[in-house]
Amino acid sequence: MSSEKYEPLTIETLAARLGSVDAICKVVGDDTSKWKIDEVGDGNLNLVYTVSSESGNIIIKQALPYVRLVGDSWPLPLSRSFFEHEVLVRQAKRDPGSVPVIYYFDKEQAIIAMEMLLPHIILRKKLIAGEYINGLAQRLGEFCARNAFRGSDLSLQTADKKSDTAMFQGNLALMAITENLVFTEPYFEAEMNHHTEGLDPIVKILRSDVKMKSEAQKMLMKFTSNTETLCHGDLHSGSVMCTDNETKVIDPEFGFYGPMGFDIGMLISNYLMAYFSQPGHRDSEKLSEYQNWILKVIEETFETFQQEFKKLWNFERTGILFPSSMFEDQGDSSDFALNEMLEYIWQDAVAVCGIEMHRRVLSLAHNADFEEINDTKKRSQLEARNLMMGRELILNNKSIKNASELTSLAKKFNSENYL
Amino acid sequence: MSSEKYEPLTIETLAARLGSVDAICKVVGDDTSKWKIDEVGDGNLNLVYTVSSESGNIIIKQALPYVRLVGDSWPLPLSRSFFEHEVLVRQAKRDPGSVPVIYYFDKEQAIIAMEMLLPHIILRKKLIAGEYINGLAQRLGEFCARNAFRGSDLSLQTADKKSDTAMFQGNLALMAITENLVFTEPYFEAEMNHHTEGLDPIVKILRSDVKMKSEAQKMLMKFTSNTETLCHGDLHSGSVMCTDNETKVIDPEFGFYGPMGFDIGMLISNYLMAYFSQPGHRDSEKLSEYQNWILKVIEETFETFQQEFKKLWNFERTGILFPSSMFEDQGDSSDFALNEMLEYIWQDAVAVCGIEMHRRVLSLAHNADFEEINDTKKRSQLEARNLMMGRELILNNKSIKNASELTSLAKKFNSENYL
Repeated sequence: MSSEKYEPLTIETLAARLGSVDAICKVVGDDTSKWKIDEVGDGNLNLVYTVSSESGNIIIKQALPYVRLVGDSWPLPLSRSFFEHEVLVRQAKRDPGSVPVIYYFDKEQAIIAMEMLLPHIILRKKLIAGEYINGLAQRLGEFCARNAFRGSDLSLQTADKKSDTAMFQGNLALMAITENLVFTEPYFEAEMNHHTEGLDPIVKILRSDVKMKSEAQKMLMKFTSNTETLCHGDLHSGSVMCTDNETKVIDPEFGFYGPMGFDIGMLISNYLMAYFSQPGHRDSEKLSEYQNWILKVIEETFETFQQEFKKLWNFERTGILFPSSMFEDQGDSSDFALNEMLEYIWQDAVAVCGIEMHRRVLSLAHNADFEEINDTKKRSQLEARNLMMGRELILNNKSIKNASELTSLAKKFNSENYL
Repeated sequence: MSSEKYEPLTIETLAARLGSVDAICKVVGDDTSKWKIDEVGDGNLNLVYTVSSESGNIIIKQALPYVRLVGDSWPLPLSRSFFEHEVLVRQAKRDPGSVPVIYYFDKEQAIIAMEMLLPHIILRKKLIAGEYINGLAQRLGEFCARNAFRGSDLSLQTADKKSDTAMFQGNLALMAITENLVFTEPYFEAEMNHHTEGLDPIVKILRSDVKMKSEAQKMLMKFTSNTETLCHGDLHSGSVMCTDNETKVIDPEFGFYGPMGFDIGMLISNYLMAYFSQPGHRDSEKLSEYQNWILKVIEETFETFQQEFKKLWNFERTGILFPSSMFEDQGDSSDFALNEMLEYIWQDAVAVCGIEMHRRVLSLAHNADFEEINDTKKRSQLEARNLMMGRELILNNKSIKNASELTSLAKKFNSENYL
């Protein structure tokens, strides 16, 4: 198939086009008349099909040459499928079991065939529904730490890291989306922006805060320049799938070399938005218990991140940075350097967290957590808390010392009424 | 010539091999019997020839497949010549007149033919000889600011910047030299290290300073990850050529995407080493006058850098960072962000400065400023001041506010006696 010109799959053509691919038939059988094919894509960018048969199930993900959410007026290169595949391969190696198994990749057709996660559902949906997931914090804390560390010059041979960094500079169209939608457009009247009625006074506070806007742009400079490690690039709760006891990460087409704190910062941000939006989804009886669980997940996620990062620092520091020749081999501990590194990662994570809290309410792609609250007055009140805390995080990313200070702040903002 | 296999030039073969290159004959004529050819390379890496005739003069620089200083036991790729040429093209565009005119480039043979700077001599030699250069600070302050700004996401279109960043990741062998010799080897007993007799107590202070070593490695992480702009990469006083009134920059084969403060930090470091080494080169009558001039050059260089960077920020901010849509277009000044950026660049420069002061005394490639002091007791005393100030700069790069604080510190260390 790969020698043919790119053509989007349809429910009607999928079986004919993929029925001869061995790797796919191994999962769902070669009798395509038994294939049950559905289109399930609910993301912003791609086509996603499920193929099910008595033999098994598979996901077929295909990039479109434009942004699905907007249409063909916004072209987007198919190469993002290549980068997604490259990231998945690395994540599977750096944190085995964390991502779906890849069965097949066709670069020309921008198709990835992968494990169907069953009965997993999107984490965001579970958070909106008030469901608990065992081991969530542990799993994603490890995921972030392992990928941050093992994709960096702390671990990789520097020649390998540099050639990989060079390759991922090619994912520029996806990086440009983040550069614009996340870091910049929330802070001026950009064409595609929209926000809930009633939020204008809060938006005005943010857009007139020169110091905060400067901090946001300093973080953009880090996004576009600090090629510290291979990031997932879009690790929100829509890129995580869970059962009650298992958690997997999907959709890394925004993969890029960036700050080690980027992924965990975006993840924590999406937990905080889940937290602030809860009063729109359930009554007070279960509300505080579930909100407290979310805050506990945040704290445990970063705690796990730290523990895992420390372990890797002590046992896998094989790159050019902080070599043992300069520390342990001379009888010196490198703990001071390690703790400074963790502090640095945390600061970047806090800044990213605050910025993501803004863009999901003010820029193009909003979160279901808030969007599904139909009462716009209620929604705007909750979004206001979220926006104001985001501002606090951006402004004070260097003085909020740890995750427990962050969750205390969340409780404070959760009790404020701005509108 | 470019289709032939790489072959080093010799005085005997140069005319036969280059006599048919139009671009070269335009400068020195096509009668090769009139060419006067000399080998003049005194750097650590390459072959350098001068070709002179009645018509004119030209420099022929050719990379060797190994490090000239060490020999063929240390291979080094010829591609550095390609990267040098690429940097020279960009520097000539970003700061016209700052670098020699390029007449001819042969990638396969790793040959660059360029303007012979006459009667320019290497800045380091002038500093050792106690000579004054008019306009030095102005020229190099502008050079550093223009290249830092115009090579960054503050100025470039981000797609162009990303593809250029990707390309320069290929200059990894040269980056590896800096990563090892500059940032790491000074701080442990590396094989190629050597230092002046008597310095052991000072070396011990440095190598047992865990906090300082951590700071040095944090700067290494920035060197290897913060692709903020295209740096010269080796901007010491041996990479600058001057007459009494004109200054040009040469030898950017270490070019890489790195921190905006890198080049100016290395430059200031080499001024400081010139400063500390002066008592080994002249008597007290002229000594303090010349030392004060060097400190004035440092202050004026950074003052010029700031002024030029501010001008570019206000009139050429065409990149994705700190867009006017977020500041000026909303009636907000971006001066706060600009000043924070300058502060950030200065902090990186101070840290790089301190590290370079260490490596030039402890690692492989020492400076003539100290090396030409034959009295090793005297030399070690001066080097000790330099090493101890380097430590102060690395440790306190965030609290030394400006160039005048830095030059005050230099005066203080210049009056200490450590050995």
